[in-house]
Amino acid sequence: MSDLPSRAPTDPAQTVEVAVHRFESGAWQSIDDEVATEEPLEIRLDGDSLAVIMRTPGEDPFLGIGFLLAERVIQSIDDVEDWWVGRDQDGYPDANALDIRLRPGSAGGGGPRRQFVVSSSCGRCGTATIAAAMAQSEPIGLDLPSQTIEVAALLSLDAKLRAEQAVFSRTGGLHAAGLFDIFGNLLAIHEDVGRHNAVDKVVGEQAIARKLPLNGAVLLVSGRASFELVQKATVAGIPILAAVGAPSSLAVEMARASQLTLVGMLRNRRFVVYSYPERIVGGVQ
Amino acid sequence: MSDLPSRAPTDPAQTVEVAVHRFESGAWQSIDDEVATEEPLEIRLDGDSLAVIMRTPGEDPFLGIGFLLAERVIQSIDDVEDWWVGRDQDGYPDANALDIRLRPGSAGGGGPRRQFVVSSSCGRCGTATIAAAMAQSEPIGLDLPSQTIEVAALLSLDAKLRAEQAVFSRTGGLHAAGLFDIFGNLLAIHEDVGRHNAVDKVVGEQAIARKLPLNGAVLLVSGRASFELVQKATVAGIPILAAVGAPSSLAVEMARASQLTLVGMLRNRRFVVYSYPERIVGGVQ
Repeated sequence: MSDLPSRAPTDPAQTVEVAVHRFESGAWQSIDDEVATEEPLEIRLDGDSLAVIMRTPGEDPFLGIGFLLAERVIQSIDDVEDWWVGRDQDGYPDANALDIRLRPGSAGGGGPRRQFVVSSSCGRCGTATIAAAMAQSEPIGLDLPSQTIEVAALLSLDAKLRAEQAVFSRTGGLHAAGLFDIFGNLLAIHEDVGRHNAVDKVVGEQAIARKLPLNGAVLLVSGRASFELVQKATVAGIPILAAVGAPSSLAVEMARASQLTLVGMLRNRRFVVYSYPERIVGGVQ
Repeated sequence: MSDLPSRAPTDPAQTVEVAVHRFESGAWQSIDDEVATEEPLEIRLDGDSLAVIMRTPGEDPFLGIGFLLAERVIQSIDDVEDWWVGRDQDGYPDANALDIRLRPGSAGGGGPRRQFVVSSSCGRCGTATIAAAMAQSEPIGLDLPSQTIEVAALLSLDAKLRAEQAVFSRTGGLHAAGLFDIFGNLLAIHEDVGRHNAVDKVVGEQAIARKLPLNGAVLLVSGRASFELVQKATVAGIPILAAVGAPSSLAVEMARASQLTLVGMLRNRRFVVYSYPERIVGGVQ
């Protein structure tokens, strides 16, 4: 890595200030408003362009590693040898490019690869078929009681996530994903214009810290639970996925097939359990 | 079309009933709950598989045509000769496949095509580069006053959209896109687990009715405004895009480049205008 830029995380602006016209209380105002930054990140694998992901800049290595895991390009962080901020054609650092080098001989290395562009809200674009994704999924395995959470702890999670959503509170434009232990303690939180990206960042960070599978963790997402979010949680070995919003039918189907506990509508001291309720114990008095 | 199934729209279930456990007011209940249906739709062009879109079933021809327009596979509905519900290998109708036949000699016909899988929340997956998408965009053209809306009419739109969101009110899991005229009258509304799909359905329906470009229309989406939604509105010639949620930085950038009026945070009798405020006139007393 002697001739390569640092792999230290950059600290780009997660919001951009724009001049806007606001109408409120019956009157117009000209103000400067903050919006969530959305920019394309090119992920290069062994020098080849693999994907372009619309994302909020920052924590790009987490996003890149998490994405490769979710897409099954790599099986674990052991398949990755190194990563660094990309360079443009003139050799200058390019904050919107991430280079990842695979360990020679790793499963994901060599051979032709699919190329894909991923919007800020897109999880599994480029996967050959949904059926294949379902088939690839391995059941998490029921390991009670190390995977159980008390109702009281579960009910506390959405307020904890909101309290940490610093950028969201300014722009209203970012999704959040928070990782908790089974006692409801916050382990990590990431935000992004794309809810899938927020989850990839959480999983990628834990993978780099060699903490996968996350067998005693609970993942909470600020939006709805789609098929892809269940798939990402399953890949990371997370037994409980909770969403502030509602799940789709395929999310429920995949959760049941993967032995994942899917919780939806978690807000205002209520929630709905769509699969494997045995991981949620007790009640509140 | 003599040996082909009808092109009459199917009427599949937009929701699925699932047995769940609900925790509310300190107590558990076992109930049947409705979740929004999410299933893959395969779009075939001249017999070749083009895309798989995760979507809520129903109005698939609208979705398919709208998707082809947004991805610039077709330039207008004139490029399309026919469409019908697909058949499986045994010749039975397959409600999760849509066949579209292009008019011979049309721009999108012939030649190799990209194949792409699109998640329920993915708009421009498969596009070569974001820069290309930006470059493809043609400015809408300022044509005042036929493109202006009164503040009072704009403020009325979100309540009208909510009132029509029949499925959403049951599942909490569907995004909506509503098309209005500049007087605030609802012209069309579609719902989907994917917000991009809801917009594609609106645009596709209008394209089939040969009403593009929608130069005197306002599009309201129930969620946030990403880059892709601005792009879809621009392709349809819609001069005003309003979102109940916040826009991203790239959405603002593209709106400004496309001469589109982008409105965000439209709720509770307030909103923010991010570009081309001259299309919004007056105030309320």
